Amino acid sequence: MAPRFAAVDVIRTKRDRGELSGDQIDWVVDAYTRGEVAEEQMSALAMAILLNGMTRAETSRWTTAMIDSGSRLDFTDLPRPSVDKHSTGGVGDKVTLPLAPLVAACGAAVPQLSGRGLGHTGGTLDKLESIPGWRASLTLPEIRRQLSDVGAVVCAATGDLAPADRKLYALRDVTSTVEAVPLIASSIMSKKIAEGTSALVLDVKTGSGAFMKELGQSLELARAMVDLGTDAGVRTVAVVTDMSTPLGRTAGNALEVRESVEVLAGGGPADLVELTLVLAREMLAAVGLDAVDPADALADGRAMDAWRRMVAAQGGDPDAALPVARHTSEVLAEADGVLDVDALAVGVAAWRLGAGRSRRDEAVQAGAGVELHAVRGDVVRRGQRLMTLHTDTPERFEWAGQALEGGWSIGGPADRPPLVHARITA
Amino acid sequence: MAPRFAAVDVIRTKRDRGELSGDQIDWVVDAYTRGEVAEEQMSALAMAILLNGMTRAETSRWTTAMIDSGSRLDFTDLPRPSVDKHSTGGVGDKVTLPLAPLVAACGAAVPQLSGRGLGHTGGTLDKLESIPGWRASLTLPEIRRQLSDVGAVVCAATGDLAPADRKLYALRDVTSTVEAVPLIASSIMSKKIAEGTSALVLDVKTGSGAFMKELGQSLELARAMVDLGTDAGVRTVAVVTDMSTPLGRTAGNALEVRESVEVLAGGGPADLVELTLVLAREMLAAVGLDAVDPADALADGRAMDAWRRMVAAQGGDPDAALPVARHTSEVLAEADGVLDVDALAVGVAAWRLGAGRSRRDEAVQAGAGVELHAVRGDVVRRGQRLMTLHTDTPERFEWAGQALEGGWSIGGPADRPPLVHARITA
Repeated sequence: MAPRFAAVDVIRTKRDRGELSGDQIDWVVDAYTRGEVAEEQMSALAMAILLNGMTRAETSRWTTAMIDSGSRLDFTDLPRPSVDKHSTGGVGDKVTLPLAPLVAACGAAVPQLSGRGLGHTGGTLDKLESIPGWRASLTLPEIRRQLSDVGAVVCAATGDLAPADRKLYALRDVTSTVEAVPLIASSIMSKKIAEGTSALVLDVKTGSGAFMKELGQSLELARAMVDLGTDAGVRTVAVVTDMSTPLGRTAGNALEVRESVEVLAGGGPADLVELTLVLAREMLAAVGLDAVDPADALADGRAMDAWRRMVAAQGGDPDAALPVARHTSEVLAEADGVLDVDALAVGVAAWRLGAGRSRRDEAVQAGAGVELHAVRGDVVRRGQRLMTLHTDTPERFEWAGQALEGGWSIGGPADRPPLVHARITA
Repeated sequence: MAPRFAAVDVIRTKRDRGELSGDQIDWVVDAYTRGEVAEEQMSALAMAILLNGMTRAETSRWTTAMIDSGSRLDFTDLPRPSVDKHSTGGVGDKVTLPLAPLVAACGAAVPQLSGRGLGHTGGTLDKLESIPGWRASLTLPEIRRQLSDVGAVVCAATGDLAPADRKLYALRDVTSTVEAVPLIASSIMSKKIAEGTSALVLDVKTGSGAFMKELGQSLELARAMVDLGTDAGVRTVAVVTDMSTPLGRTAGNALEVRESVEVLAGGGPADLVELTLVLAREMLAAVGLDAVDPADALADGRAMDAWRRMVAAQGGDPDAALPVARHTSEVLAEADGVLDVDALAVGVAAWRLGAGRSRRDEAVQAGAGVELHAVRGDVVRRGQRLMTLHTDTPERFEWAGQALEGGWSIGGPADRPPLVHARITA
C-alpha cells in the first residue's frame, strides 16, 4: 500500500514547479480512480501539469499508475510475436484496415484495441461497423482465439484497460487540459502498454487535419511516447507523418472500407499504399520479421485473404455490399490549375455530412463522407468534378459545404510535403 | 443578459496567457454561482489564473462580478461617514476590538462585517463571542440602528454578501489555488466593497505569522487591493505591517478581549496601541475627520464608552468576568539574554491549545491561548516566566509545546523590524 498524501500537497508541488515523487503519483492516480481525490482537485493538478510540465520520470510513473488502475493483457504465450500500431488520428486515415491483416499475413499477431471517433477524425471501429454483420465487442478468449487463428483483431477496448485514463480524459475534455504533452502521451501509452503487445509503432500525425498542427509539437509528442514505451519495456518506434491533406481519396466510414479493400487488392491511392507499407515494415522489423516484404503480401493476395478471415471472424460478411448514402452532391473546379486540398476542411465536411459524431452517444452514418476525385498536386480543369459529398441527410450539404470554403484552391504548383517527416526511436 | 460563453473557451484563454474579456468574466462568475460552470472547470481556471495572472482590469471586473452575485449594502444615508478596516490576519491581531469603538468615538461609523478564524490566526467574532451574552448575528435594520446610535458594529457577514466568493473560496481551499494575488485580493475586496463603506483601510500583514510571509508578496497584495477599492470608487489605503512576532502579549479569544480592554482603558502593550492609533488616524483621514486625535479619545475614556455601548448593543455584558481556561502551563527562560519570539509558533500553539479551529464547524475554547510575559527585544533571565499556556484540555499542552520548539530563542540583540513597513495609496 502506497503511503497516503493530501491532494492539496500534490497539487501544490506541481503548481510550484516541483517534481512529483513516484509515491505521490501512485497515490494521486489511484485515489482519483477511487473517488478520494475529487474531480476539481484533479483538474487543478492537470492544469498545473499542462502549464508546468512533467519530467520523463514523472510521466513514466504516471503512465504506470494509470495502467495499474486496471488489468494488463498478456499475449506472450501466442505462437506469433505481437505488435500493434497506433495513430494519433487524421482525415482519411484508414491505414489500420489494410495494415492489420497485412502484418498478420506476414507472420505477426496484431491485437488492435481501438476506439470510436469524436470530432473531425474518424474512428476505426466506426469504419469497420459499416460492414454488414461485423461486431466490435469481443471477449478476451475470442480475441486470443482470433489472434492465433487469423493473426489480426481490431475490436473495442475492454472496459478494464486503464480505467483511470477514461475518467481523466473525460475531465480534461471539459477543463481545457487536453493539450498537455505528458498527459496526451500517458493517455495513449497507458492503453497501448496495458494491451500487452511486445512492440508498438506510433503514427504521429502533423498538419491541419491532425490533433497536433505544428511539426514541433508532433515531434515532442512522438518523443514522449517513444520514451514511455521504452521505459515500460515495449519496443517502440514513431513515425511522424503528414496530415496537411487527406490520406487517400476518401473520408467516411464505408467509403474508407471500400478504399482499404482496393489497397488489399493491390490497388488504391499511392500515398495510402506507401504509408501502409512504411508502417508494416516498421512493425515487422520491430518483432524481427525483417526478411518478409509486405509488398509481396499485398500483391499476391495473402493480405486480402487475412482481411476476409479477420472480418468473417467478427461476424462480418466480406462479400456484402457496403452501405451507400442516399444523396450525393458534386463539387466542381472553378478554374484550371493545380489543386490543393486541406485536411481539416475535408475532415470537418465529412463529419458534418454524418460520418462523425459530436457527442459520444451519437450514431454515425455508414455511407456519409467525402470522396476526392482529385488530390493535392493534380492538374485540374474548370468544370471537372473535384469531390462528391455523400449523406443520408441532404439538409447537411450546405453546412458541409461551408466547411470546404477556403479548404481547397486551384493555383500554381502546390507544395508537396513528404509523407514521412521523421522517424523517432528509443 | 451577458452573452453566453463556453467554459472551456474561457479556461483556454487564461491557460494560453490571454486576457479575459469583461463579458467572459461576468459570465463565468455568474454561471459558476448558478452551477452551470462546474467545480472542476472553475478549479482549472483558478489554477490558470494563479500561474498566468490577471491584469488590473480583469481583477477589477472579477471583483465586480463577485459583488454582483449578491446584494450590496449602502450606508450613505447615515449621519456619519462610514469607514472600515480589514486585516489579512495575524497572531494576536485584536486591533479591531479597540479600533472600531475608538474610530466611532471620533465621529465615524464603522460597519465591520467579519468572519470566524480558521487555522493559526484567530477570528474577530470568536474573540468577541467570549464576552458573555454577546451575539454576532444581526439583522440589517439592527446594524443600521447600531451604526446610528453607537457608531460601531462588528458582526457576522450576511449570507448574501458576495456568495460567489464563498463558493469559490471553498473550492480554492481544496485545490491549492488560494495563493493567487488576484484571487486573494478580489475575495477580500468583493466582500468589503459589497459592505457599502465609503472608505477602507487595509492592514496587510507580512512575516511568519501572516498569510503572506514575504514583504514583496505583501506589497503586491496591498497594491492589488488598493487598486480594486479605487476602481470601485471606495477611498482605499493600505498599510503593510509587521507580523514576524505576535502583536501585543496575548493570542487567544478571551485573552485578547482582556488586552483590548486594557488599550481602551489607556494602557496595553506599546505595539498594539501604536498600530491601533496608526489605523485609526488612517480611517479618520480617509473620511475627512483629520482634525480629531484618536489618542485623546483613548486617554479620556470616550473610546471605552463606545466599546461598552457597542458590546451592550449586541447583548454582551461589558462588566461580566471573561472566561478563564481551567489549566495553565508555564514556559521558562533557559538562559539569560535578549528574547525573540516567532509569530507563527505562538499562533500555532494558541490554535492547538483550543483557541482556533481546524474545521469550519469546530467550536473554539474561549479561555485558551498563549500569554506572553516577555516579548521580542526584552532582556530575560534564566528561570523567568516567558509564557503561560492556557487550555481546558491539558492533554494539548504537549502538542502546543511542540509548536513552540524553535519558536523562541534567547541570544544577542534581536532585530526589531518596524511595525509599519509601507503605506500604499491609490
